[in-house]
Amino acid sequence: MSSPVFAGVEAGGTKFVCAVGTGPEDLIREVIPTTTSSETLGHVVRFLRAQARPLTAVGMASFGPVDLDPHSPTYGYIASTPKPGWSNVDLRGALHRELGLPVAFDTDVNAAALAESRWGAAQGLDNVLYLTVGTGIGGGALVNGAPLHGLTHPEMGHIFIPHDLQTDPFLGICPYHADCLEGLASGVAMERRWGVKAELLPADHPAWALEARYLARALANLVCTLSPRRIIMGGGVMHHLDLFPMIREHLREVLRDYVQAPQIVPPLLGDDAGVLGAMILAQRIVT
Amino acid sequence: MSSPVFAGVEAGGTKFVCAVGTGPEDLIREVIPTTTSSETLGHVVRFLRAQARPLTAVGMASFGPVDLDPHSPTYGYIASTPKPGWSNVDLRGALHRELGLPVAFDTDVNAAALAESRWGAAQGLDNVLYLTVGTGIGGGALVNGAPLHGLTHPEMGHIFIPHDLQTDPFLGICPYHADCLEGLASGVAMERRWGVKAELLPADHPAWALEARYLARALANLVCTLSPRRIIMGGGVMHHLDLFPMIREHLREVLRDYVQAPQIVPPLLGDDAGVLGAMILAQRIVT
Repeated sequence: MSSPVFAGVEAGGTKFVCAVGTGPEDLIREVIPTTTSSETLGHVVRFLRAQARPLTAVGMASFGPVDLDPHSPTYGYIASTPKPGWSNVDLRGALHRELGLPVAFDTDVNAAALAESRWGAAQGLDNVLYLTVGTGIGGGALVNGAPLHGLTHPEMGHIFIPHDLQTDPFLGICPYHADCLEGLASGVAMERRWGVKAELLPADHPAWALEARYLARALANLVCTLSPRRIIMGGGVMHHLDLFPMIREHLREVLRDYVQAPQIVPPLLGDDAGVLGAMILAQRIVT
Repeated sequence: MSSPVFAGVEAGGTKFVCAVGTGPEDLIREVIPTTTSSETLGHVVRFLRAQARPLTAVGMASFGPVDLDPHSPTYGYIASTPKPGWSNVDLRGALHRELGLPVAFDTDVNAAALAESRWGAAQGLDNVLYLTVGTGIGGGALVNGAPLHGLTHPEMGHIFIPHDLQTDPFLGICPYHADCLEGLASGVAMERRWGVKAELLPADHPAWALEARYLARALANLVCTLSPRRIIMGGGVMHHLDLFPMIREHLREVLRDYVQAPQIVPPLLGDDAGVLGAMILAQRIVT
């Protein structure tokens, strides 16, 4: 009997990544620029319909905020988002109606955590934290092998950390919370604070020490709350790999041996984590 | 066939609470003062051996830090604790060897979350946060119905929250982290800051507004990380019930409608949550 074929769709603010196959070794990929919701979703549906092999299920991993409550009338919708034309869009329903297939739905970061725990930097671990530090900051997690959500989904980018205005007078750029983690330490915050894009800051710029301190403070809170077995940190800002040893050192300092720090590692699946995680989501609803 | 009989033991720094029965309606309780480890555990063993009905399993819910990793050589031990004579004590092993029964083991706060979700203030909910604010601050959680732990167990009392030294120059009392949540907002911190025990502070004292602000900040972080469906707040400090509406209001303010705040309620099981949760732990390992 041939292996079942699954589709994964990672819905992002700039592109939708689609993949169809039986696993990472057998994948057909398509990248679709994010334009209007109807055009973009139409493109996704055409790609999935064009597949020669019949699909068993579809998994969707989306940017947020999204509604993950299967009992909610807006399950699978993007909620209000600053992205024009994408608020209250029924992402999951559009695919489900057009394709007539089961469609699993979760956040992009939870999907990335799933994929990294199956094929990537956290193989075989059931309690994993995935934090992406890019334009914004987002976190996903597996707890006992399942994506973490409850009343809504985690918004780890919006936790508060100590912010000493005397040493760092920057007020933060989060439109909701000013100096929450994302407001202080996202790629956009770095650019706004230093007047230059993060990737253009030289390795000896004080920006990196400050960034490592803020991220370590955030990790301390996340470790004390979730106790993950491993932390994967991805996203554009983390491409500056010097951050890893700096964050590890600060985290140990901040936790003070009272709480054990887990390993902190870069992702192994890179840009594919989201869409591979979406395929695992698809698998999970039919098995 | 008669219902299986389980034992629960809540191990606390001042007392051990034991209970034997089939559920909350059928319980024999015994409270044992915490003295030396051998004396206290000997007392627990004698009580459990003296039961007329045969026990199926024992659950133990302990103060911490404890080792919850079943693969660890110190599984079921209390780790280093400031309590004299209780560091590196093999709590679980002592009961297991003396009684020859399966012994489940978790933190007191995870057990309380379990009990409140079965019989208390979070009935039927699978994603629950239980925070106790007393001498210290501790948090337990259920995620998808199971107690939350990973590399170690959560230490939610030790998360960091913004602390403005200009409006609150108190430096915090945590011996590890100074002004972490427990360092700023535990019962001991309140007593040290205001020079009087929390329960003696009048209702119009500014202590309560400050306490509500700190606890709301902490809840904001916990909500953004765990997304619980309900939050139960217990412990001595929370006996000041005026805190509940103040915390709810601050939390909504802090989250700014970006993240939905769950209900925040007092426990229903009071002092019995820990030992009832321990009985559920016992049930869970044999069913």
